[in-house]
Amino acid sequence: MEKIASKVVASSKSYGILPGVYLIGAGPGAADLITVRGARILADADIVFYDALIDISMLEWCPSTRLVQVGKRCGSHSSSQHFINKQLVDAASKHLVVVRLKGGDPMIFGRAQEEIDALEKANVRYEIIPGITTALAASAELRQPPTTRELSRTLTLTTLPSRCAHEDHKTAIYYMARDQLCEVATTLIAQGYPVDTPVCLMESVSLPTQRSFGCILDELRFGDVHHYFLDKQPVVVMVGEVYRKKLQTLTPLIDYQIYFKVLQVAS
Amino acid sequence: MEKIASKVVASSKSYGILPGVYLIGAGPGAADLITVRGARILADADIVFYDALIDISMLEWCPSTRLVQVGKRCGSHSSSQHFINKQLVDAASKHLVVVRLKGGDPMIFGRAQEEIDALEKANVRYEIIPGITTALAASAELRQPPTTRELSRTLTLTTLPSRCAHEDHKTAIYYMARDQLCEVATTLIAQGYPVDTPVCLMESVSLPTQRSFGCILDELRFGDVHHYFLDKQPVVVMVGEVYRKKLQTLTPLIDYQIYFKVLQVAS
Repeated sequence: MEKIASKVVASSKSYGILPGVYLIGAGPGAADLITVRGARILADADIVFYDALIDISMLEWCPSTRLVQVGKRCGSHSSSQHFINKQLVDAASKHLVVVRLKGGDPMIFGRAQEEIDALEKANVRYEIIPGITTALAASAELRQPPTTRELSRTLTLTTLPSRCAHEDHKTAIYYMARDQLCEVATTLIAQGYPVDTPVCLMESVSLPTQRSFGCILDELRFGDVHHYFLDKQPVVVMVGEVYRKKLQTLTPLIDYQIYFKVLQVAS
Repeated sequence: MEKIASKVVASSKSYGILPGVYLIGAGPGAADLITVRGARILADADIVFYDALIDISMLEWCPSTRLVQVGKRCGSHSSSQHFINKQLVDAASKHLVVVRLKGGDPMIFGRAQEEIDALEKANVRYEIIPGITTALAASAELRQPPTTRELSRTLTLTTLPSRCAHEDHKTAIYYMARDQLCEVATTLIAQGYPVDTPVCLMESVSLPTQRSFGCILDELRFGDVHHYFLDKQPVVVMVGEVYRKKLQTLTPLIDYQIYFKVLQVAS
């Protein structure tokens, strides 16, 4: 391991880290799915503001840095977006390298626009370092491209149940839809997706706790399935004909529901 | 630089690299926009099959590895997908760690399905390591999220001019559309996108040769613009109301056309 790591470092190009605020995509969860550039800046950061959703192992990149947890998913330490913006601008006047570490990619459903606007208004130098977005990490874990030449040449990424009309079996991947799964299914079926369209759900993508389930849209419509996922863990929902073959290899959501009920009765 | 790199390595988690074939996303181009996991596997690879589109600096991660260029963009060394599949399966029987290094993310318009099918048929162990897809790296460089809460909560990634109906100003990003720009614009306008919908075009994303241009759909429809980009360099085309403000900061495509013609007359 040490030998491999040294080789990586020895062959890397130098990267001058300028003072400023860095919006860095942490990727889906696993610490080594951050980019090399992101890891280097983290290691050189003076202060890191990190999302509540960030897996704690990610912070091993910056063991001696001041860490501040922000974001709406951390219960009592809840921070409004306005307050996060202010913290970033304030930190930039006191520290050389300020990092805002965001889950996934900062530009995909990450409210980066508000932080960019605040930094530009305050005339603070900033950079954005992209991260692996969860939909693509989930596709790698599932070993199923969301588009194939035969079945779908279009991928839609969305957070909304209502914005995805059926066009030629195209693939849709939903973020932050865990609590709206019935609504997603109902809306897609109303818009023309066949009731037997395959769906893959993946929780805690790339982490040791990762779990995957398969079902068809119709099952999702009638199950109260959001209770089957762990609290605060993000779930990505992949919908499309392209997932048909994968259904055979995934834990069926319907069986899992029965299993869960048996478990409840037994406890 | 050395200090930073050592810190990154010291704080990283160990990663056991098992024998097999690794489909690794190289990211958009810059060598340090690969993931840490991808860089480590590259450093330990016995043989690397890399796309013609991969920037050569990426191969500094594996200086002592046998390198084989594959892919359809390398002129006389052109390899069919079928031949690449065969090379991967053959290499897996001769080497411990075989890498297939693909531009961007392997799962987004990367023909990963064909390689996965061949590896599964030959019963070869494989893993997929995601990479930063060009659309998101371009968004980071442009400093403009493709979705914002006000303007668009849906992002469509596609290669096809004909598959993107206008719905509530949603954002579309086209891959591999450099030679179909007029067709993309004509189709989008026919499908309801306003003629003044902003378009950002970015060439060679994240590389020193990166260039960006701005225009509106109508200009794209009437200009023979693909000639203004360099041969073999990928161009990503971002379309949507969300890019309106950015238009003021980008080189206008129309002015650039005039400049290019003046240049031609002068030479």
